Amino acid sequence: MRIARFSIDGNVAFGAVEGSTAPGAEGELVLDIIKGIPFADFELSGTKVPLSKVRLLPPVLPNKVVAIGRNYAEHAAELGHEVPETPITFFKPSTSVVGPGDPITYPSFSQDLHHEAELAVVIGRMCREVPKERVKDVILGYTCANDVTARDVQQREKQWARAKGFDSSCPLGPWIETDLDPADLTIQCTVNGEQRQLGRTSDMVRSIEDLIVHITEAMTLLPGDVILTGTPAGVGPLNVGDEVAVTIEGIGTLTNKVIKRG
Amino acid sequence: MRIARFSIDGNVAFGAVEGSTAPGAEGELVLDIIKGIPFADFELSGTKVPLSKVRLLPPVLPNKVVAIGRNYAEHAAELGHEVPETPITFFKPSTSVVGPGDPITYPSFSQDLHHEAELAVVIGRMCREVPKERVKDVILGYTCANDVTARDVQQREKQWARAKGFDSSCPLGPWIETDLDPADLTIQCTVNGEQRQLGRTSDMVRSIEDLIVHITEAMTLLPGDVILTGTPAGVGPLNVGDEVAVTIEGIGTLTNKVIKRG
Repeated sequence: MRIARFSIDGNVAFGAVEGSTAPGAEGELVLDIIKGIPFADFELSGTKVPLSKVRLLPPVLPNKVVAIGRNYAEHAAELGHEVPETPITFFKPSTSVVGPGDPITYPSFSQDLHHEAELAVVIGRMCREVPKERVKDVILGYTCANDVTARDVQQREKQWARAKGFDSSCPLGPWIETDLDPADLTIQCTVNGEQRQLGRTSDMVRSIEDLIVHITEAMTLLPGDVILTGTPAGVGPLNVGDEVAVTIEGIGTLTNKVIKRG
Repeated sequence: MRIARFSIDGNVAFGAVEGSTAPGAEGELVLDIIKGIPFADFELSGTKVPLSKVRLLPPVLPNKVVAIGRNYAEHAAELGHEVPETPITFFKPSTSVVGPGDPITYPSFSQDLHHEAELAVVIGRMCREVPKERVKDVILGYTCANDVTARDVQQREKQWARAKGFDSSCPLGPWIETDLDPADLTIQCTVNGEQRQLGRTSDMVRSIEDLIVHITEAMTLLPGDVILTGTPAGVGPLNVGDEVAVTIEGIGTLTNKVIKRG
């Protein structure tokens, strides 16, 4: 199932996306409104609205986003780094999250903004110290993410809270795909239609299972929390006016435009 | 005013602390229950409960805690570091926050847990790009914090999300003092009654004003968000069974016991 979060006439709801999401056919998509929230048992209401009539929101409002650095060897190498001995783990705050179609605002304190296309894992239930074989039970589904990074600030500041935690640095969407094997999917990033990043999730250094074991060894994850699993090679600059699109096989496309802060 | 958050008979409320908080007189303190929340105009209800009858909770449940590393020169030096050119900025997640009297659970993945006594600033209103002269308008008040750190993990892992973001790594309390000049207060940390850290907030490398300008240049702060302002010299190990107490002049004492994960 594909679960979207959206607003219509000032109300916010979750809905199941129905219809083909093949390119070109998206105008025909409808949302069957969910009674309640997708983090517990829920029913579809049968009340349907066309996707074209709603504004899609970030598919979840995470309490926290836990992100992983250098989890694709080719990307680590392109920035001159080795693959780290233990996963590099950092936070992006809830205030950094925006949805599909929302602007990425170029931060005032950077001159080198980069895109980083990533597979995002959406946590479905509160969990702590999850054994590897139980990881699948705590995952609600998957969505696309852009771990937008002020590369110059990242290189200047030892910890990445500002470089990767500024407002609008975490686009998520367009929806959560709950029925998906994430083991070997293509991840692509385009800027103004031109391909910049192309990778496969099978090239992750650490698997999703290993990452969630590693993270929950230290901290509780809450329903709606999001894990970003690292970016493949090909990261590069974003400029004001650019349209950046992250496409993951089996999920869909997350598109955002870079605007000037004003 | 001192604002505490507490639970009594299964209900959670904020209250104004009345009476002397001088050592030894604490049994006489009462809480005047606040109608509503302290992040907007509020009234005292006049309904009073003795502090001894309630369980104090973290005085706020922050959306995020933004913390600053190496903001006291002597502490930077004791760990062999220079004072950084720009403030080191990192996050502690909401899941790391515990209240006064709550246990600090020794993490399974560390053998070198440290205390770090810090002055915590509680944000009172949503803000972004705050000019220096307006910082005082966005602050609700101040409380004590312990930036509990898995020092070995911090040294091993490039980003500090696990070393400083594990569950119970952010004790806050005992209450928020709203009427306080934070410019020159003593900060003390004791372990089992023995003094370990002693500093003055006047020794901060960057002032609270400068830190909030720096942070809000990048990100929106929400009501209840917390800024940790760095720790003075004297950090050291915590062991299972230890009682660690952070005392800040004009605020009070935050006490927590270290327990084994069980």
